[in-house]
Amino acid sequence: MNGHNIGIVGATGAVGLKILKVLDERVKDIQNLRLFASERSAGQQLEFRGKRYQVEDTANSDFTGLDVVFFSAGTEVSLKYCPIAVKAGALVIDNTNAHRMNPDVPLVVPEANLHAVKNHKGLIANPNCSTIQMIVALAPIHRVNPIRRIVVSTYQSVSGTGLEAIDILKKQSEAILAGKEPPEGVYPHPIAFNLIPQIDILLESGLYREEDKMVKETCKILESDIKVCPTTVRVPVMFCHSESVNIELSEPMTLAQVKSILAEAEDIVMVDDPARSVYPTPLACQDRDEVFVGRLRVDPTVPSGFNMWIVADNLRRGAATNAVKIYTEMVRNGLF
Amino acid sequence: MNGHNIGIVGATGAVGLKILKVLDERVKDIQNLRLFASERSAGQQLEFRGKRYQVEDTANSDFTGLDVVFFSAGTEVSLKYCPIAVKAGALVIDNTNAHRMNPDVPLVVPEANLHAVKNHKGLIANPNCSTIQMIVALAPIHRVNPIRRIVVSTYQSVSGTGLEAIDILKKQSEAILAGKEPPEGVYPHPIAFNLIPQIDILLESGLYREEDKMVKETCKILESDIKVCPTTVRVPVMFCHSESVNIELSEPMTLAQVKSILAEAEDIVMVDDPARSVYPTPLACQDRDEVFVGRLRVDPTVPSGFNMWIVADNLRRGAATNAVKIYTEMVRNGLF
Repeated sequence: MNGHNIGIVGATGAVGLKILKVLDERVKDIQNLRLFASERSAGQQLEFRGKRYQVEDTANSDFTGLDVVFFSAGTEVSLKYCPIAVKAGALVIDNTNAHRMNPDVPLVVPEANLHAVKNHKGLIANPNCSTIQMIVALAPIHRVNPIRRIVVSTYQSVSGTGLEAIDILKKQSEAILAGKEPPEGVYPHPIAFNLIPQIDILLESGLYREEDKMVKETCKILESDIKVCPTTVRVPVMFCHSESVNIELSEPMTLAQVKSILAEAEDIVMVDDPARSVYPTPLACQDRDEVFVGRLRVDPTVPSGFNMWIVADNLRRGAATNAVKIYTEMVRNGLF
Repeated sequence: MNGHNIGIVGATGAVGLKILKVLDERVKDIQNLRLFASERSAGQQLEFRGKRYQVEDTANSDFTGLDVVFFSAGTEVSLKYCPIAVKAGALVIDNTNAHRMNPDVPLVVPEANLHAVKNHKGLIANPNCSTIQMIVALAPIHRVNPIRRIVVSTYQSVSGTGLEAIDILKKQSEAILAGKEPPEGVYPHPIAFNLIPQIDILLESGLYREEDKMVKETCKILESDIKVCPTTVRVPVMFCHSESVNIELSEPMTLAQVKSILAEAEDIVMVDDPARSVYPTPLACQDRDEVFVGRLRVDPTVPSGFNMWIVADNLRRGAATNAVKIYTEMVRNGLF
């Protein structure tokens, strides 16, 4: 390719910085780069391939001339500025919750439903982090033997909340280790040496919104009425989300068959020798783009049940890498 | 009561020290107290109600004269010395895995199956910590509407491993916060800011033994062939185990009915106002004897499904308190 003009809105945030890094690793030719953030962060300089770029204020910017713009600056910013960027002629890949369930907006995990981008109207949504890693692991099984039901409990790192959450986890941990009261902040309870079974706000269904996302996004991406029963929990881990997943398949299948599907699938790494304590852990999966699966085993309590433990870097695989991969796979497949 | 002669084997360990504390709180009359531990810890002095007790070496001790002996010094010690204590005339309450599945040994959670002690032959087993708190929460529901299947993912604190695990979590946390390599120890991977989806050794079934315990102990205590599908995970939390539990009941039931059963049950505290971020967390449940339940909600993906989040202090409710309560409830009900 000749190189596109690429923009990042929310460039100074946890995901924005990671998009910059993944672009550097995965996109050889970039004609021009423009970085956007809130008024507060505008004027900062970020380096990319030896050159310094000044961060522009999203509110005062004109997106004209940009071919693709990644948005990761919160739902409000996306609701307001994605349509403006689309109107200016850019393909927008939005990492927020703003447009995911809009029927006119494809919601894409490239390994699962790249075909969905064909119907885009300038805007493509990047799914929620906890959904992406589950979909990458389950889509190849679902293609062969439709999944009927998923019961999933998550163990989600604080980096999903943002850079300020990593900071509060560190500060609270230091305080507790020193025998002091942990400082308040970011979460409604201390997160250091603790667990918070709440991610996002409560909905009428009794689910927190993170749980609701896993239910609805999974159905949309897999184009199925698959039943999803999630419990999402914040844990005192800095990077990588982990998921304990139980699935029920439509037809009988052996453990060896499921294992071989996963072993051959794109972007999945099997880390599964439990007798030797080999399974994915968040510390070991940090800074990796793949989805790691271990503890794969038969669940004998239902006809065709399996359990697995799925770990991925939420900022990379669960956000930046998926967003960039939507773009690179579109280019590679002549869909851009 | 007149007061019994009480012994604790493993008195210097995490659970042993907690048994001492719970005896102080719950057993008014104690005629004499004797404390036992390994050769390494023998000779130490522990204080109880203003008096100092010298710890005896289990290997060289005679249990004669003791009415009840609590064992919590590991499976090997229990296998060897429980029968000796029984022969000496004591009622033994064993907190290890040594005799739990022995059909001649009642496995007791007082709120669920105190009646089982009637058949004891001198030895009663205290269930595994992760099983106890789940049983306390589920037994009252199961009595009214039999549970058919449980899918549970645990979030277990390091104190379940012992005092040395609390120490390594602190040391590893300090190292990582200082940007250093965490010291190795206790677990096959670092536990600080990490997750380890392994508790105990792998069995042929593909389950780790902690998972196997949850399956088999649940069936034995509830006297049912209830199907249990567990995933047990160690988390960087010091005290209290948490569990994300999905249940399928035999008959239809409303959320209000389940809530009212739990609200009226012995030793259960409902902490459940998710709109206001009210749910149990391990930090808040520390040093408490009750089982805390929150996030109670309908699971619409199966006919009579419910989810809940169960937290309890694993050293107290999951070990010491349950063991002491077996004894006090036997006394109170004229079963001793």
